[in-house]
Amino acid sequence: MPAIRLGLAQTNPTVGAIAANLATCLEQAKLAHSKGVNLLVFGELAATGYPIEDLAHRESFLMETETAISTFAAQLYAAGLGEMHVVIGHPKFAYDRNTPWAIAQNAASVLHSGEIVGRYSKRHLPNYSVFDEYRNFIPGNESFFFEIGDKKAGLLICEDIWQTGGHIVDFEEAKPNLTLVLNGSPFELEKLDQRVQIASKLAIQTNSTVAYVNLVGGQDDLVFDGASFAVDSQGNLIAMAKQFEEDLLILDVTETGDVKTVSTSHQAGSTFDQVWHALVLSLRDYVEKNAFPSVILGLSGGIDSAVCAALAVDAIGSDRVFGISLPSQYSSDHSKSDAADLAERIGVKLSVQPIEPTFQVIEDQLNLTGVASENLQARIRGIILMGLSNQNGHLVLTTGNKTELAVGYSTIYGDSVGGFAPLKDVDKILVWKLAEWRNEHARKNGLVPPIPQNSIDKAPSAELRPGQIDQDTLPEYDILCKILDLYLVERLGAEQIVAKGFEPALVKHIMNLVNSAEWKRRQGAIGPKITEMSFGRERRMPITNKYR
Amino acid sequence: MPAIRLGLAQTNPTVGAIAANLATCLEQAKLAHSKGVNLLVFGELAATGYPIEDLAHRESFLMETETAISTFAAQLYAAGLGEMHVVIGHPKFAYDRNTPWAIAQNAASVLHSGEIVGRYSKRHLPNYSVFDEYRNFIPGNESFFFEIGDKKAGLLICEDIWQTGGHIVDFEEAKPNLTLVLNGSPFELEKLDQRVQIASKLAIQTNSTVAYVNLVGGQDDLVFDGASFAVDSQGNLIAMAKQFEEDLLILDVTETGDVKTVSTSHQAGSTFDQVWHALVLSLRDYVEKNAFPSVILGLSGGIDSAVCAALAVDAIGSDRVFGISLPSQYSSDHSKSDAADLAERIGVKLSVQPIEPTFQVIEDQLNLTGVASENLQARIRGIILMGLSNQNGHLVLTTGNKTELAVGYSTIYGDSVGGFAPLKDVDKILVWKLAEWRNEHARKNGLVPPIPQNSIDKAPSAELRPGQIDQDTLPEYDILCKILDLYLVERLGAEQIVAKGFEPALVKHIMNLVNSAEWKRRQGAIGPKITEMSFGRERRMPITNKYR
Repeated sequence: MPAIRLGLAQTNPTVGAIAANLATCLEQAKLAHSKGVNLLVFGELAATGYPIEDLAHRESFLMETETAISTFAAQLYAAGLGEMHVVIGHPKFAYDRNTPWAIAQNAASVLHSGEIVGRYSKRHLPNYSVFDEYRNFIPGNESFFFEIGDKKAGLLICEDIWQTGGHIVDFEEAKPNLTLVLNGSPFELEKLDQRVQIASKLAIQTNSTVAYVNLVGGQDDLVFDGASFAVDSQGNLIAMAKQFEEDLLILDVTETGDVKTVSTSHQAGSTFDQVWHALVLSLRDYVEKNAFPSVILGLSGGIDSAVCAALAVDAIGSDRVFGISLPSQYSSDHSKSDAADLAERIGVKLSVQPIEPTFQVIEDQLNLTGVASENLQARIRGIILMGLSNQNGHLVLTTGNKTELAVGYSTIYGDSVGGFAPLKDVDKILVWKLAEWRNEHARKNGLVPPIPQNSIDKAPSAELRPGQIDQDTLPEYDILCKILDLYLVERLGAEQIVAKGFEPALVKHIMNLVNSAEWKRRQGAIGPKITEMSFGRERRMPITNKYR
Repeated sequence: MPAIRLGLAQTNPTVGAIAANLATCLEQAKLAHSKGVNLLVFGELAATGYPIEDLAHRESFLMETETAISTFAAQLYAAGLGEMHVVIGHPKFAYDRNTPWAIAQNAASVLHSGEIVGRYSKRHLPNYSVFDEYRNFIPGNESFFFEIGDKKAGLLICEDIWQTGGHIVDFEEAKPNLTLVLNGSPFELEKLDQRVQIASKLAIQTNSTVAYVNLVGGQDDLVFDGASFAVDSQGNLIAMAKQFEEDLLILDVTETGDVKTVSTSHQAGSTFDQVWHALVLSLRDYVEKNAFPSVILGLSGGIDSAVCAALAVDAIGSDRVFGISLPSQYSSDHSKSDAADLAERIGVKLSVQPIEPTFQVIEDQLNLTGVASENLQARIRGIILMGLSNQNGHLVLTTGNKTELAVGYSTIYGDSVGGFAPLKDVDKILVWKLAEWRNEHARKNGLVPPIPQNSIDKAPSAELRPGQIDQDTLPEYDILCKILDLYLVERLGAEQIVAKGFEPALVKHIMNLVNSAEWKRRQGAIGPKITEMSFGRERRMPITNKYR
């Protein structure tokens, strides 16, 4: 009999669906109890979903959550699980005269014997990147420990372990056997290793077993990847839960502090594997949590729409994905045949809606030329997709990639229409790599590669005028993506970028394009963050801005 | 000879235009010096504009600002103004291990004899409403005072005076004669009185003359209203600068602490007068700072587009405003004649672009019915406006009001198209009141009332099907606006709103409409905040959200 049988329950809550989220937690608790778990830990705000944003300012929401947590404790007891310690994250009502704009704390409660027996409030609030927690929460100001038999556990919540601060001293003094960390940590390239490193360091510092429990699932532009894990007091990674799926990871902590895996441990896949699954989960959850019956997207024969369609099929199945080919007089034969090839490969119905009849009427009526005429084509496509969406209830996917968004190489109210942008944070280079990875993945499994090779190989083009290709007005994508990384991610100035070996005029041109497109990005659809610098709430720039 | 001749310089900076902003400041300094001013105070971040948002994370921006402030000090000296003390707000580079995500402070420098002789960093950072300062800045941690002859002045920046905290103790101890407060305080209904009250309280607490200097001008969705003012140490309001215009307010502070106005003092207008001027200034500055030659908008004959057109003419003149009538088969005669009447009253060119030819082509091609067909009409209007915008460089104004935005009573990519939404924060009831105020204002001045009375009087309708009016699907606007205020501003829950005497089913319906429209609002144009709860960055709600 181990001292502690520990369960790390990574659930996929929906923001605001308090009762449904807690019903899932109850099922997980029953399962854990049946496997002998005596300490079960859920993720950050698992009761309400995360992030709750300005719902944190609504007293009724906080009061309903409080009641629901008490009810959950009673339900656990009624189900015969009263002797198991259950730790769950939820917002709680609070007041502090130094933070008068917030009325909540980001808390975790310990439930036992049908009661709330202890509670901790997150002390370190992230207020950078996509996080606005100092807006929505009041920081806690003390550490919290509780006893399980003759063992002691301490609680921490997410940002607490990323910042230095008072809690380490408290933990060194209290000497808990277990440090339980509740997280709502969104997926990001390279993030998984960082989490393990920081937890490992914490385990050594506090000489305790660290249980890191993450949420899983898509919530608007964030996708939580799960991959909860445990580290022993020497800092060794012992076991990891599934990435991108709900899971219950069970471990034994012995009297001597040894940690042994009871359930199955998993390993994360390659970078492209992870990104693909992050995008799939994000799209699936946006569709399902918002109850869309299906998605629709324009299939141009190009790489972006092909990758989006393949993602959609992986997310919700081919019978719920509708492809539309929207040819114009400038569409090449291969754009039509590649779209058809794609549709056949992924088993998606394709219908063809030419834009030329409408185009002629408006162009003649308004005498449009040049860019105005090019944008008109994209906007007629947008109108057709939105019309079919309104008629049939489909969610429209917008297929643009991050590089296009960055430089404004898209038509607002045209190819930008839609409720969700799967490739919003995927630059053009990564789009190609993902396509190749996905095809290779299919080949390895003896299946048909979903993306037509021709869509991968051909020169990208918007086909808005005869013979047009992207590189008529943009540099090669590898150069463009490098300059954009230096500007957007490294936040360098023009001189610093030029010092890295790029043409001054080109650098200035790219920076101007980025800044001029800010108003369009502000009106863009949401899409999953997968990098350390996504567009959307992670990069907040003025539209009116003379600084480059 | 007074002890201090104090100048409050409210300038209209453009975010990021450091050199141009400081050139304006230099002109103001010359003017102030010529009038004998020996202490001149500018607003918060007057050097760079405010808010700078994530520009605060760019080292090159902070370094250029630092250099520019030194240059400005040297320019003042070179112009013979070296003996005048000049206080100016600007961001400064900083580092703090407790706030590792930010690299700037919101600072103010005192310039004298060509040098930076002192510097203060804002201690209280607003991180609520539209403000993200804890994201972008590191809080300062000490008070700052400086000597002018035998007098002493203390510096504070904006939020410092709205929060309780250490600085009051420091001020009570240091006993400055003058408290100089640099502000970037956006216009909001009722805000002016609050500012005076809080400054008055501060004056009494610190027994000092308080100079409150605000910025003026539009910056994206914020409009700074100026109205800088001074309060004597007994808390009496002595003088106020112009509202909604650049101004230099000059006062003498005598040896005994009496405060006397040297320049002209102004008074704020009525509520509607203030809102109208806030909207005009906001629109004008968005157009001018982003260098648009002109604006274009659809004129439906309804009240919203009429008010937008009148605002645009007041902002940039009738020759730069282009009205388009976009009739369909469902357009009433009065919608066409009221649009023509409006155009004539305000001297705007009106062109007519029927949408029916295009509508027939697409509706037949896609077999659209019901709402899909209604939305199609709005989207063809959007395409036409955007086509003319792309062809001629016009900024498209989107004319929807706050009530429509709240309940999603607009077509995304249809009537929502545009770069700027003048009525974004103006609810339908206020739209009517503004129209009446503006007409009355014209009458009082012997001019033609701009808004056709028929546009004010008739029942609002989108005219997307025969005989349609807004109240087919919405409650009366006075009831709707009240429920929305309780939900959005008071943040009440359904039960609490029902307890105020509204139908439970109606309350639930309205709340559902608001939540379902979140994805559309997220893709909407920016527009000026004028209330305490605007849409946009002030209300951050998840799209995927099951809580009502």
